[in-house]
Amino acid sequence: MKRITVSLLSLGVLANSPAFAQEPISPISPVKQINLAQVELGKKLYFDPRLSKSGFISCNSCHNLSMGGTDNLQTSIGDKWQQGPINAPTVLNSSMNMAQFWDGRAADLKAQAGGPIANPKEMAFTHELTIDVLSSMPQYQVEFKQVFGADKIDIDQVTTAIAEFEKTLVTPNSRFDQWLLGDANAINADEKAGYDLFKNSGCVACHNGEAVGGTSFQKMGVVEAYKTDNPAEGLAGVTGKDADRFKFKVPTLRNVEMTYPYFHDGAVDTLGEAVDIMGRLQLGKKFTAEENAQIVAFLKTLTGDQPQFTLPILPPSSDKTIRPTPFK
Amino acid sequence: MKRITVSLLSLGVLANSPAFAQEPISPISPVKQINLAQVELGKKLYFDPRLSKSGFISCNSCHNLSMGGTDNLQTSIGDKWQQGPINAPTVLNSSMNMAQFWDGRAADLKAQAGGPIANPKEMAFTHELTIDVLSSMPQYQVEFKQVFGADKIDIDQVTTAIAEFEKTLVTPNSRFDQWLLGDANAINADEKAGYDLFKNSGCVACHNGEAVGGTSFQKMGVVEAYKTDNPAEGLAGVTGKDADRFKFKVPTLRNVEMTYPYFHDGAVDTLGEAVDIMGRLQLGKKFTAEENAQIVAFLKTLTGDQPQFTLPILPPSSDKTIRPTPFK
Repeated sequence: MKRITVSLLSLGVLANSPAFAQEPISPISPVKQINLAQVELGKKLYFDPRLSKSGFISCNSCHNLSMGGTDNLQTSIGDKWQQGPINAPTVLNSSMNMAQFWDGRAADLKAQAGGPIANPKEMAFTHELTIDVLSSMPQYQVEFKQVFGADKIDIDQVTTAIAEFEKTLVTPNSRFDQWLLGDANAINADEKAGYDLFKNSGCVACHNGEAVGGTSFQKMGVVEAYKTDNPAEGLAGVTGKDADRFKFKVPTLRNVEMTYPYFHDGAVDTLGEAVDIMGRLQLGKKFTAEENAQIVAFLKTLTGDQPQFTLPILPPSSDKTIRPTPFK
Repeated sequence: MKRITVSLLSLGVLANSPAFAQEPISPISPVKQINLAQVELGKKLYFDPRLSKSGFISCNSCHNLSMGGTDNLQTSIGDKWQQGPINAPTVLNSSMNMAQFWDGRAADLKAQAGGPIANPKEMAFTHELTIDVLSSMPQYQVEFKQVFGADKIDIDQVTTAIAEFEKTLVTPNSRFDQWLLGDANAINADEKAGYDLFKNSGCVACHNGEAVGGTSFQKMGVVEAYKTDNPAEGLAGVTGKDADRFKFKVPTLRNVEMTYPYFHDGAVDTLGEAVDIMGRLQLGKKFTAEENAQIVAFLKTLTGDQPQFTLPILPPSSDKTIRPTPFK
């Protein structure tokens, strides 16, 4: 399938465009232009807990690919069981985000990947020790050299490989995408009614595009304030602008059935409650129970094929490898 | 390949037996008589952190199949980052053990599987809550019904499925097994010299059979006492017999290059040091540096094909699923 990019301006002029060209949500495209050697290396790094001080926490601990690319916890568990400050966003389809983290402080996946490794509340390691650990293992040495052609491993290679693996974590072929691509029976009447409500009520103003989100920052609590104990201030922490307080990156709704709990504070467990709150706080609408159920039914059609791959086998540490220190 | 069981008594009478019939170590046999539906369900359960109170710890957390079926930590990390009492043994080839846990307190894999779930220092959950969680998810309900034919999920089904998956976690085709099966070039001269030392020095008296261990309990520190801060007393805790103090199940040496750190207290990081200590404390032998290196080289030939499987995708929680409580 060819990827078709449709801007709002061009909608009117594409006479022979497929059905989805008329829709504000576009189907997920297959992954293209991938460096497969980097992907295989990045997959190992993604699953390697030796990138943490404790030797226990890997990227996959909080962005678990068995569980929709999240940990399904309100906020994550970090080194020494520290409570994370914010809900872990899904890694699935995250390459489609305009920026990474809830506050967009990382421009892309590569910039994001180095963050948790060195965050004392998350993996609690350092980039220097990460390189020491990886360089101490002959298998990693050989693989990095094969992939990057350099004699020394560096953090830029590490984050490049992890990001390349993450680019493969897309979830095509959801029932909604099948419908977008022309299979009228891929979603049922309730689900279609839910989609119509989603469009006509204004949800789609923010949740649009290939990822059904990830394309803008929006204030949490437009019509009515959002009450939370979570102190996160969102985009304002990056821009320093008071106008950006409580602005967060609009999360993707792809696979949203799997990425509970919801919102930046992970305070909401169910899709029904999330839809109700979004309707009231962002749109000033109180959906009826039937409308709510229809929107939830639509949202569940956004679950796509989960990434399928063989669990990587990690190179063993050598006698020279620095050992983890979980209890120090 | 047919599995050939050779008892010591029968060695003399097998005129046409293969080469390995003369050896105290036998090659790993392929897995047979497996219930594949149970395996697929058990694989999901093995990777499902919702079998823990925190929603963060799964079987795979401490018996990580990317890392030789262990966590490569001295002692494991449990709920709320509690420090475990003993080194996590590898799950690989564990079906070959005469009993499970270092002190053999579980007769088999099924009996073992329920332990960590309900251990307040490990997964810190209860069997009742485990069943509540699993029963709340339609996908699990259907799969359990398909596999076991019963209307209700129970803990016996859970541990049966996990154990069945674990039975598939064998590592055939190591270079040493290739040599046993007749490929004279599968191991080099140093590795062969190491094996001869391993046999002739007496290591093989305890480390024998298909798993190169797992067939007996032995005292840690026979010739010379083993010094450790770890308070584990081993088999005595199960039998109540003073004579069983510091007796531990002899660990498998299959994949031992991957299952560091070594011994029940996980105090030793390298194979060289482990071989030196075993020689002195168990056999009263001080291996030379060359002998030590040869034995280590032999031990590294015991690394087999690691289990290859697709990372399982877990059923999402439903609105009724009890949520994890990592910080309560």
